[in-house]
Amino acid sequence: MTVVVADAGTAVRRRPGRPRDEEIDGQIIAATLGLIDAEEPVTVTRIVQRSGVSRAALYRRWPSLTTLIAAALDVGRSIPPAVDAEGDLRTAIFASMFGAAGMATTSAYSEARFRHRIRLVMADRALQKAYWRSHVARRRVPVESALSAGIARGILRDDLDVEACFDAIAGVVYYQLVVRGDRLEDESTRARVSAAMDVVWRGMLA
Amino acid sequence: MTVVVADAGTAVRRRPGRPRDEEIDGQIIAATLGLIDAEEPVTVTRIVQRSGVSRAALYRRWPSLTTLIAAALDVGRSIPPAVDAEGDLRTAIFASMFGAAGMATTSAYSEARFRHRIRLVMADRALQKAYWRSHVARRRVPVESALSAGIARGILRDDLDVEACFDAIAGVVYYQLVVRGDRLEDESTRARVSAAMDVVWRGMLA
Repeated sequence: MTVVVADAGTAVRRRPGRPRDEEIDGQIIAATLGLIDAEEPVTVTRIVQRSGVSRAALYRRWPSLTTLIAAALDVGRSIPPAVDAEGDLRTAIFASMFGAAGMATTSAYSEARFRHRIRLVMADRALQKAYWRSHVARRRVPVESALSAGIARGILRDDLDVEACFDAIAGVVYYQLVVRGDRLEDESTRARVSAAMDVVWRGMLA
Repeated sequence: MTVVVADAGTAVRRRPGRPRDEEIDGQIIAATLGLIDAEEPVTVTRIVQRSGVSRAALYRRWPSLTTLIAAALDVGRSIPPAVDAEGDLRTAIFASMFGAAGMATTSAYSEARFRHRIRLVMADRALQKAYWRSHVARRRVPVESALSAGIARGILRDDLDVEACFDAIAGVVYYQLVVRGDRLEDESTRARVSAAMDVVWRGMLA
């Protein structure tokens, strides 16, 4: 967990962490998540009270509440490892996106927190963009690289916009969660997502 | 506008409206939207103050604040007309989904309201499912019918799951708004959405 927290804060922290620093990071993040999970207002004052860390120490680590919330919301999520683009590309890409390290709403990242994250980012575009840049965009890199490798191997069309392809694949899943309100564990949801993936994959093939 | 309001409230109102009732409906809905658009807290007390309608009259019409907000958030959106599936199917379908009557965040339906709607449904799955059934699912029918017609005409593959195809197309747009936090008016967003649509469309072709 400490590793994940340290990773989540890398983009916004001002200096490299010592062990003591990481402990304080963890206290601040835990207090932030405690407020989020309790559905209480998330303010610097409340985080300071709950964590026992000083306001100055908090601001030294996170220059704004927005970046702190973004880091907290990312706890339990990590950047997936590089995708093996040499073998069955389709299987490798979907395993990366929907496997344990990939998509939201796995066991490591509860649906409750996913729903809360969407609420927070829809309420605050600055937070949304900060979270996008420092977290989501970085997690997309392994799959986008594999798509580029697929183009280089001649499996996928050479005129593909790999970012748009990622959006199409991930968009299907977000639609289930954000618009339909369905659960990815449900058989009918899985069947629909799989059917949509077939369509997107065919559209990418050379 | 009166028609839209009456339509939006049908699922939750207890009795058929008379002209006088519709006027009161409109006042309540307008006050609710006024608070949403001003980004002020939306409470029954504030709606009562702003509309001049009594609390009892409000609760007679909408048994809960969430159903009232859901109805208000749907004002300005309507069910698109049937899609002409005889001509250029692709153009007709995308015009229906992204034209004035189709997708969220057109001029009739501001982005602020869209973001508010997502926040609301992510906070309340029961509302999300109710809104899905009474509003979103009905708006999908014309395009899903056109996709079925495209299969019948032999333009699209006969093994397509039309619901999954709709999810793939709409999912791309939701991803821009909900995850990336981008605006559909931006040139770069339009280019990415268009590239993803090319992929999905190719994957649907017979």
